[in-house]
Amino acid sequence: MDALVIHAPGDLRVETVDTPDVQPHQLQVRVRCGGICGSDLHYYQHGGFGTVRIQQPMVLGHEVAGSIETVGGAVQGFAPGERVAISPSRPCGQCRYCQLGQHNHCLDMRYYGSAMRMPHVQGAFRQRIVCDASQAYKLADHVSDAEGAMAEPLSVALHAVNRAGPLLGKSVLVTGCGPIGAMAVIAARRAGATRIVATDMAVQPLRTALKIGADQAINIKDEPDALAAFSADKGQFDVLFEASGNARALVGAFDALRPRGIIVQMGLGGEMSLPINTIVAKEFELRGTFRFHAEFATAVQLLNQRLVDLKPLISATLPYRDAGKAFALAADRSQAMKVLLSFE
Amino acid sequence: MDALVIHAPGDLRVETVDTPDVQPHQLQVRVRCGGICGSDLHYYQHGGFGTVRIQQPMVLGHEVAGSIETVGGAVQGFAPGERVAISPSRPCGQCRYCQLGQHNHCLDMRYYGSAMRMPHVQGAFRQRIVCDASQAYKLADHVSDAEGAMAEPLSVALHAVNRAGPLLGKSVLVTGCGPIGAMAVIAARRAGATRIVATDMAVQPLRTALKIGADQAINIKDEPDALAAFSADKGQFDVLFEASGNARALVGAFDALRPRGIIVQMGLGGEMSLPINTIVAKEFELRGTFRFHAEFATAVQLLNQRLVDLKPLISATLPYRDAGKAFALAADRSQAMKVLLSFE
Amino acid sequence: MDALVIHAPGDLRVETVDTPDVQPHQLQVRVRCGGICGSDLHYYQHGGFGTVRIQQPMVLGHEVAGSIETVGGAVQGFAPGERVAISPSRPCGQCRYCQLGQHNHCLDMRYYGSAMRMPHVQGAFRQRIVCDASQAYKLADHVSDAEGAMAEPLSVALHAVNRAGPLLGKSVLVTGCGPIGAMAVIAARRAGATRIVATDMAVQPLRTALKIGADQAINIKDEPDALAAFSADKGQFDVLFEASGNARALVGAFDALRPRGIIVQMGLGGEMSLPINTIVAKEFELRGTFRFHAEFATAVQLLNQRLVDLKPLISATLPYRDAGKAFALAADRSQAMKVLLSFE
Amino acid sequence: MDALVIHAPGDLRVETVDTPDVQPHQLQVRVRCGGICGSDLHYYQHGGFGTVRIQQPMVLGHEVAGSIETVGGAVQGFAPGERVAISPSRPCGQCRYCQLGQHNHCLDMRYYGSAMRMPHVQGAFRQRIVCDASQAYKLADHVSDAEGAMAEPLSVALHAVNRAGPLLGKSVLVTGCGPIGAMAVIAARRAGATRIVATDMAVQPLRTALKIGADQAINIKDEPDALAAFSADKGQFDVLFEASGNARALVGAFDALRPRGIIVQMGLGGEMSLPINTIVAKEFELRGTFRFHAEFATAVQLLNQRLVDLKPLISATLPYRDAGKAFALAADRSQAMKVLLSFE
Repeated sequence: MDALVIHAPGDLRVETVDTPDVQPHQLQVRVRCGGICGSDLHYYQHGGFGTVRIQQPMVLGHEVAGSIETVGGAVQGFAPGERVAISPSRPCGQCRYCQLGQHNHCLDMRYYGSAMRMPHVQGAFRQRIVCDASQAYKLADHVSDAEGAMAEPLSVALHAVNRAGPLLGKSVLVTGCGPIGAMAVIAARRAGATRIVATDMAVQPLRTALKIGADQAINIKDEPDALAAFSADKGQFDVLFEASGNARALVGAFDALRPRGIIVQMGLGGEMSLPINTIVAKEFELRGTFRFHAEFATAVQLLNQRLVDLKPLISATLPYRDAGKAFALAADRSQAMKVLLSFE
Repeated sequence: MDALVIHAPGDLRVETVDTPDVQPHQLQVRVRCGGICGSDLHYYQHGGFGTVRIQQPMVLGHEVAGSIETVGGAVQGFAPGERVAISPSRPCGQCRYCQLGQHNHCLDMRYYGSAMRMPHVQGAFRQRIVCDASQAYKLADHVSDAEGAMAEPLSVALHAVNRAGPLLGKSVLVTGCGPIGAMAVIAARRAGATRIVATDMAVQPLRTALKIGADQAINIKDEPDALAAFSADKGQFDVLFEASGNARALVGAFDALRPRGIIVQMGLGGEMSLPINTIVAKEFELRGTFRFHAEFATAVQLLNQRLVDLKPLISATLPYRDAGKAFALAADRSQAMKVLLSFE
Repeated sequence: MDALVIHAPGDLRVETVDTPDVQPHQLQVRVRCGGICGSDLHYYQHGGFGTVRIQQPMVLGHEVAGSIETVGGAVQGFAPGERVAISPSRPCGQCRYCQLGQHNHCLDMRYYGSAMRMPHVQGAFRQRIVCDASQAYKLADHVSDAEGAMAEPLSVALHAVNRAGPLLGKSVLVTGCGPIGAMAVIAARRAGATRIVATDMAVQPLRTALKIGADQAINIKDEPDALAAFSADKGQFDVLFEASGNARALVGAFDALRPRGIIVQMGLGGEMSLPINTIVAKEFELRGTFRFHAEFATAVQLLNQRLVDLKPLISATLPYRDAGKAFALAADRSQAMKVLLSFE
Repeated sequence: MDALVIHAPGDLRVETVDTPDVQPHQLQVRVRCGGICGSDLHYYQHGGFGTVRIQQPMVLGHEVAGSIETVGGAVQGFAPGERVAISPSRPCGQCRYCQLGQHNHCLDMRYYGSAMRMPHVQGAFRQRIVCDASQAYKLADHVSDAEGAMAEPLSVALHAVNRAGPLLGKSVLVTGCGPIGAMAVIAARRAGATRIVATDMAVQPLRTALKIGADQAINIKDEPDALAAFSADKGQFDVLFEASGNARALVGAFDALRPRGIIVQMGLGGEMSLPINTIVAKEFELRGTFRFHAEFATAVQLLNQRLVDLKPLISATLPYRDAGKAFALAADRSQAMKVLLSFE
């Protein structure tokens, strides 16, 4: 069986790996499609991010969907041939945080394709994968494998929206319209936001933002002062989803955000210098958001019931043997939003 | 100028009333369309509800839209000819509750067409009305007068949804699919509920419920045990919107509602006998919901931005001179969902 | 080893029972003191409550403290001779609700001394008990065995307070001042309530309420209209802890409870007839509260750090061989608040 | 009548000012005692803070208590001779934020002794002040004028605690133990925190912290790594009150703060460089807190009912004619916590 294994920055190989045995509570799934995530790109381009580094060969990938080949003896409710999206999140279920329902903070998390721990947790860019039945969520017939693979990044956006609290009737700003920002637009709309303004420095992501439902898209490179139009009465936005990881985007939104405004910080960005007095005086709430847990089930439900449409985010689907080309395309914001790999 | 004045049960007259002068902060609006509400029906059929009784002639009506005729001297942002929905809610802005943002509990509320206080507050079923500019919300061109008039009941449903907390990804049961229950289906969907099941005792409302987006509609008269399908693991619904005002509907949903489930009680219903031990042991939260405040602006925004569609709820629009016929139709659940009056 | 075994209403026997082996993750504890709870009384007087009935002999009791005799091989942080309070709550940790941190709704709960399931879960009124180390919480030297045994009912009150949301600066009414109502007074004060009014029908509980910190105690039998003093501006109390299980107490507080007021229903009481229109129009939130989970640790911390004082609630401590006398005393509200059994 | 007027940094003069007439809804109060706040110190030492500068002579002071001399004709419930604490917060009551109950974000706030607007709002360090009756809160006999003057900084701490959400049973870290940090210790304890650890760089504030109820006081200058003891399982504190305004204090607490931990930022501090990835990955909530509104009433209630004790925070009370000496003392953290001025 083939898998995409990262060895070092730029060194991504198609290699043969073994398929483990299927335990009674598990499924074997023929992976059909996998989405390239920003963290995959970081491993490929830089060998990691922050303090996380590749220290041993690792199968990449954590956004996948496929069809069931084998059903473990103790599993109920699944049958061979059924198509599923697979959650890459595998919390322990036992630790303090799992017992609080905060599984994304599990003390013993084994997330697919992550070099955070040693040995690394192998990923899902492979032709076959064995997973726990509890990781698998059935896809409706009308949901493509590519859309199924995007249940994972949608879950990230849904978790961010849950972190924001109720959005019904709220005015929302999204800074940064890459895949995660775009998913935030979709999720915020689904949650009832009445006004959604998106900003970015590039043309292509903003076009997509409008296509998926943003009410207004601002190219902050061309119009650096455009947000001033929202600063009346101490600020017009109720919630900011910051998806760029850029301190200027974050701070640049402060005047447009109302007192008691909520900032959900999605983008990673190292050290950021922030005017703490504004946060204090306007009583902002700056909330981090990290991965997801229960939101994966919601993501698949929304797809199955046609309550969200992720198709406009698909830029291209390439064969896994062309991974290099696919990763290069994924890295090019002027051309690509979401790039997927086919494992057929 | 004509108005619809209730004198006693069944005694609803078209009468000539005066138009007051327009104060500087006010607008004069030519009323185009008005929706008949359940409370209007109660005044018409029974002369009131609960302890509230008509004690003097009163113009009925609180769900109206129209076009501006005159703009007071101190008003900004409005022009003659613009079409608006009018909020019937007029809190004092000064009392303890207004200062907490809980305007629907105002100690000095003057709500259109309400006999709760003496003298009664005259209503909006009239050809012309003078209102504060702060009560008026502009309608987009594509929003009809009838839809504009329905901003009010939609606000009631939006407030109920806000009382429930975040609904993104939640499983929702709506008992009672009259106009308010139907609006709750629409509002819950807009807020991100992934599963919505509606129940009623009549065929027509359930058909409408499916048309406006409910995933399943159950005729609880034909299938009294149908909710048992949702009782696994102590209950499958996260939230119940109870819009029937019937104790059997409320209590009948208890087994299908999960522990910590939230019940938003919308329907009025006098004394209800409830199994308090179930509420205690399952830690339900039974929350009343009453009218709205900020939700009126949200309702108009949702209509203007095509984020909700209320047209399937419109049963008929009759001339105000045929009010008797209109009220009779509105009272017939087998035929009518929302009946409107034209004041052209 | 002796234990108190209930066979039928009024038939409570001292019997010899076996001590199970100590598993590696367990402790064997010499029980020193146990509190008689209302549910113990119900088993003793009526053979159960609601639909729950004794169907086989069952050791009673779930409020106990003692000293460690044996420490399982895998247990860390405990030593023989240390004194502990033991949580009677044993959720499965695996089910849907445990994984949400809502362990009190565990689908497979095994709560000490409960006839809710068959076979019944044997209780803790015994000389020795073997429990999981995770159930044991160390007591400071200054905390008596009797106070340690009361960590359990205190946990119930703390959970009720957690269900109410923040109480700092809030005005609180407690109806019913038996052990649970009294604990609610203590817990509400600890959580920052600024005004606490307690009501009851009996003199003795009200005296205790004042002793433990209530600002005012009202004998609702002598002064049935006393709460009218709190009805200005639609009601003066923010929160009601209803601990009597009496519909008249609950409904009688409605006029004194402000709009959006929170009712935490602690008392069990079968069917209650409630004026649902008041709940709707005042937008009350009626919240059930049931047992506890994380609050047991908090209860012991509060005792250890002298942040609460439960001593005024202790009416008497009798030898377990005088159980009949102890139960009779516990049932007499004119004499007893909390009655404890010594297992020395 | 004398007042303390700031003209420029270091130029604080005793000057004669007029007393305005008492309007019908107002009180004239003989000011007895006033507390020196950090912002008063900033005006005195630096002529302002951040972008706020003294641009015209301004009476300083906003923490005062005194006794009523004259009662306006329309005022009820007050009588000459009664002692009151005066809230310096005067929101408009009309704007968007006042109508939401978020009066501390009023668009037209007139806060005593503030140079934020022009003309500056004159302060309360004066022998007589005329205020609205709604600003005055009666003091119990056992509450001294000095304690009454401290109702204002206590309100700031209570608001910070309200921003944190429920604290019952929570583990709390307070960084920075000046007057505001110390008040946060007191308020957090009152709200039910079970463990409170305080840090500072100086000996004196830490001694006070222990005296007022902190469980542990850490001199972070002497023991820079002391918080490492709280980093197990991703962090042991639930809530951080950051009262130092120092980025190192804030960031230094990150390892000791659990995932989903809440940071209430009280201290002002200009630009702060923060490791945003930690905020994201641990899903912290960094919440600003600014002044107060309803909490002033709570502060006086807590004092009146002996539910807090502020006396240990009083360092000295000096005659207003010795203002220079008083301000110098207030600026010396090794000697002073709270310094008050007597206007007798």
